[in-house]
Amino acid sequence: MGGSFALALRRAGFDGRIVGVSSPPAIEEALRHNVIDAPAALSDAAAEADLIYLAQPIARIIETIPKLAPHLKPGALVTDAGSTKRAICAAAAAHLPAGQFLGGHPMAGKEVRGAGAADAALFEGRPYVLTPAPGQPMNEELLGWVRRIGARPVVATPEEHDRLVAASSHLPQLLSTALAALLAGRPDDIAQVAGPGLLDMTRLALSDYGIWRDILATNRAEILAVLDAAITQLGETRAALASSSLEEDFARGAGFAAALRRRE
Amino acid sequence: MGGSFALALRRAGFDGRIVGVSSPPAIEEALRHNVIDAPAALSDAAAEADLIYLAQPIARIIETIPKLAPHLKPGALVTDAGSTKRAICAAAAAHLPAGQFLGGHPMAGKEVRGAGAADAALFEGRPYVLTPAPGQPMNEELLGWVRRIGARPVVATPEEHDRLVAASSHLPQLLSTALAALLAGRPDDIAQVAGPGLLDMTRLALSDYGIWRDILATNRAEILAVLDAAITQLGETRAALASSSLEEDFARGAGFAAALRRRE
Repeated sequence: MGGSFALALRRAGFDGRIVGVSSPPAIEEALRHNVIDAPAALSDAAAEADLIYLAQPIARIIETIPKLAPHLKPGALVTDAGSTKRAICAAAAAHLPAGQFLGGHPMAGKEVRGAGAADAALFEGRPYVLTPAPGQPMNEELLGWVRRIGARPVVATPEEHDRLVAASSHLPQLLSTALAALLAGRPDDIAQVAGPGLLDMTRLALSDYGIWRDILATNRAEILAVLDAAITQLGETRAALASSSLEEDFARGAGFAAALRRRE
Repeated sequence: MGGSFALALRRAGFDGRIVGVSSPPAIEEALRHNVIDAPAALSDAAAEADLIYLAQPIARIIETIPKLAPHLKPGALVTDAGSTKRAICAAAAAHLPAGQFLGGHPMAGKEVRGAGAADAALFEGRPYVLTPAPGQPMNEELLGWVRRIGARPVVATPEEHDRLVAASSHLPQLLSTALAALLAGRPDDIAQVAGPGLLDMTRLALSDYGIWRDILATNRAEILAVLDAAITQLGETRAALASSSLEEDFARGAGFAAALRRRE
């Protein structure tokens, strides 16, 4: 994500210096693919940068924020690309000067990580959520770059963001994982009759738990709420099936699914 | 489906006569697209045909079977393309001479119906389930044509078929519909942050209830059983989430999803 943001900034006309802070192999890859201009230590990068972009797993972002604090230039902005926002924004509020952090969540991603897979077009047409704290003015410069890299900015509080993604992303993930885990446990050979619908419904189940551990841990209350709603909904589906009246569910579901696609 | 089967037979080298039984507009479309050689009344087609292919909604297939009985040539075979098999095979067992019916379910389909959308390549690489009654010998001629049109034959009893598709097709449909119906009822604007995962998980929800009514009605017991298993699984997901131990579910789900894709 960090590499794609760097390439997207360049393509959008950013002509400043881009330094990378990462492990030696990741830095080597980023230099080889011309994704960064130079490597730097965290403290040096923090002291030098106008914009610091934290593209790490959520737990690492939360660990990094206090390390930035002593080095940060006045007027510099820290942002991030973490998939949940409440825990990260709370860490920033605790450790960084007011107004110097603005949480972000680009709704884009690739299955392959690393600078070799970085893609300047990754954000095009995708939502990019920015989550100012209540009362915090929007950072117009970051908002401008989000627009220039082709993303669709969405502004929400960290709480609103986490509630939205619990429903739009975390619940679908858990439904896909639960379906695949359930079918994995059956003695019969489902795969021999699998069609494209089952492939669609199990694609998210391919996800790596390493990414999801932090997401689930930092959005547990919202996810439990939406999971409970889903279990209730399936109980209603069960009752409706027993009495042959699923037509309304199909109509509501089809209407929602069609509306999603008109937004694309 | 009937039109695609006719075109696929032709492409695979079938040089006999293909007549169509349908409504006047459907017949007109089938003739215009050279999908059939001629129209016929049901009784005439039944008296003349070596193979009768019932490509109708499930309830219509069940209505048609007894109408065929008085006209059927000795040695002729009736097959069908219905999405559930127990109810259809039971109707055939009640009304047709033993050995003259062999249930079928090609796991292929298009969103658009009618002869204008017929596709000779529709069955290529897709499973095609054939469901002989217990003790019924396989009809080698139909099996041969299923292979020649490029499908992957799968032999199962009607009961095994319905249990398999309850898990591989009907449950995924109901999960997608339940997810989309649940999200449709939320006051917040999910669509503004929807990513490709949510689009995958709601594609099946676009399905028309008109198709699903008969499927749900003729496979209710199996669907209720697998829906109960899914509700139990989600309850376990909920409990695991509360205690942070979802890693095993993710691993099992990812393993199943990856195995499905190796079969493709």
